[in-house]
Amino acid sequence: MSDATVVAAPVLESFSQKLLIAAGATDREAEVVADHLVESSLLGHDSHGILRLPEYLGFVAEGSITTGAEITVDQRSPSSAVVDCGLGFGPVGAVRAIETAISLATQSGTGCVVTRRCNHVARLGAYVQLAAERGLVALATCNSPIHGHFVLPAGGRQGRLATNPIAYAFPTDGDPILADFSTSVTPEGKIRVYRNRGESLPEGWVQDAQGQPTTDPDRFYGPPRGGILPLGGVAAHKGYALGLLVELLGSTLAGLRCDDPETGGNGVCFLVIDPGRFVDPESYRQLVAGTRDYMKSAEPAEGVDEVLVPGDLEFRIRRQRQAEGVPVDAVAWEQIVGHAERLGVELP
Amino acid sequence: MSDATVVAAPVLESFSQKLLIAAGATDREAEVVADHLVESSLLGHDSHGILRLPEYLGFVAEGSITTGAEITVDQRSPSSAVVDCGLGFGPVGAVRAIETAISLATQSGTGCVVTRRCNHVARLGAYVQLAAERGLVALATCNSPIHGHFVLPAGGRQGRLATNPIAYAFPTDGDPILADFSTSVTPEGKIRVYRNRGESLPEGWVQDAQGQPTTDPDRFYGPPRGGILPLGGVAAHKGYALGLLVELLGSTLAGLRCDDPETGGNGVCFLVIDPGRFVDPESYRQLVAGTRDYMKSAEPAEGVDEVLVPGDLEFRIRRQRQAEGVPVDAVAWEQIVGHAERLGVELP
Repeated sequence: MSDATVVAAPVLESFSQKLLIAAGATDREAEVVADHLVESSLLGHDSHGILRLPEYLGFVAEGSITTGAEITVDQRSPSSAVVDCGLGFGPVGAVRAIETAISLATQSGTGCVVTRRCNHVARLGAYVQLAAERGLVALATCNSPIHGHFVLPAGGRQGRLATNPIAYAFPTDGDPILADFSTSVTPEGKIRVYRNRGESLPEGWVQDAQGQPTTDPDRFYGPPRGGILPLGGVAAHKGYALGLLVELLGSTLAGLRCDDPETGGNGVCFLVIDPGRFVDPESYRQLVAGTRDYMKSAEPAEGVDEVLVPGDLEFRIRRQRQAEGVPVDAVAWEQIVGHAERLGVELP
Repeated sequence: MSDATVVAAPVLESFSQKLLIAAGATDREAEVVADHLVESSLLGHDSHGILRLPEYLGFVAEGSITTGAEITVDQRSPSSAVVDCGLGFGPVGAVRAIETAISLATQSGTGCVVTRRCNHVARLGAYVQLAAERGLVALATCNSPIHGHFVLPAGGRQGRLATNPIAYAFPTDGDPILADFSTSVTPEGKIRVYRNRGESLPEGWVQDAQGQPTTDPDRFYGPPRGGILPLGGVAAHKGYALGLLVELLGSTLAGLRCDDPETGGNGVCFLVIDPGRFVDPESYRQLVAGTRDYMKSAEPAEGVDEVLVPGDLEFRIRRQRQAEGVPVDAVAWEQIVGHAERLGVELP
């Protein structure tokens, strides 16, 4: 990343907040969104990190993100609720939704919360991470509406699903076990990172609009647009089944048709379990830590340094970037600078 | 299957019940187990169908399945419970567990149930199917203890997970959407079939003990033993993350260490959601059916007849086998006949 601008995380966060406030966000919205994007970049999830800031600022300018949006929580049972995010910033709605699920799980043992009118929530793992930091187990799924249906159903040649990530987190005696992955071979955001860097994609990720394998991000984006392969390789029907699960949880429980062109943003489903109803909290953390240690005790294959659990890499990158700064790729930085000029915010 | 014995499903079910009762099962146990195995065979899941009957009868004879086992339900919160299956027949314990989860979800919106001392539950999809037939949404995961840890963590060369299936079901206006798949590329049993035939394995299934890819079943079995790759191909870290999720839900919530050599059987976790708390039941079925139809509307790839949703193939096979009978392979039939002679049960 020789052409990246490297910014210290606190500086980037405060600068992002200023930009968001100048664009019309409330202090709380700016705080949540800036924290979310910088934290995602710190963890190495660049595709859901600060490069989304210019996109969000653009959405505010064009009116598809409402600033100061009212969020309403409609509790439907002792353990279920629908959170209407009012078309505000996605991370603000999603934080409210996971907090609702955490509250339901704490009271009733389990919480199931779905969102409506929720804009792009960025890094899904952020929300389950929040639950695990409070000692809870959390699963999350996130769909996208029809215009984001890049991913092919197994055996098909027309996209019918988004990259539909699944995230989960379990508390341990240290960093949580934290997984966050799309049910396609790759999320669309990662393809964008390759395009911004002018690099070729790994093989086996995408096809072009003619159904031919390609490593050229531009041939994927088109137009006409190509398709992303479902997770699974020789067992792609399993990745398809996972993507469909995410779609069903995100749309049908929210009362929405999966192919409704009027639906925008993300359909998120959070399932939070209070492990304290099963095992005392300290023993629970030790049991999860024991599972982590057992996984990591496997000898690595040749060419691999060590066996990791989900989240290990991210928390390492986080420590490194907290010390060395967050790299912002050239394209994203130029876009951010453009917004700063438009909004009259001084560069850091 | 020219050497298979074909038996009408009701005949096979009644015969299986008689064998189970003769072996010491209660009427209820015999009914649940026979129904489970015959239903699995009807749906084409032969590996979890009637061929398990002689195995179960053998386990009863050797004492590892307890007949007339006491099952206890320990409710821990309005939406969570632990079901101790008393080392009885796995399907009997698992049916009790899903019924508990259904009851919790009906009362509280969501139900989370884990099992303890649960023997082999056979087809995991059976339990979520039961919930979907009652209009509920269900997810299920199922781990296995350390002696079945054939599956590698990503980057490792020693097995740390079992094939850890995930199942889910959603109600529709017809057959439920019903998915049931392992989080590894293949089960160990399939590798054994290739070895017995002296054939090479497909690429991308296993590694040898040094962590090198191999298509030689003998290099997988060793000793030292290699490992089965997690689902995902180039994205095997995702299959690993899914397998780890299944392990964590199955062991830690039940208060068990993942590597405890004393633990036997399956650790099942059921999550049931009452969609009626979100959407009226009839509209809900229509929304899921709409998602199904949207998936199936994708044009198929060259060489593919049509795009399916999970469960389509199984319910087709079920209709065919209900009409034509259930094939029981020669080896399994011979074993069943042996048990019938031992137990003094007349062949159908």
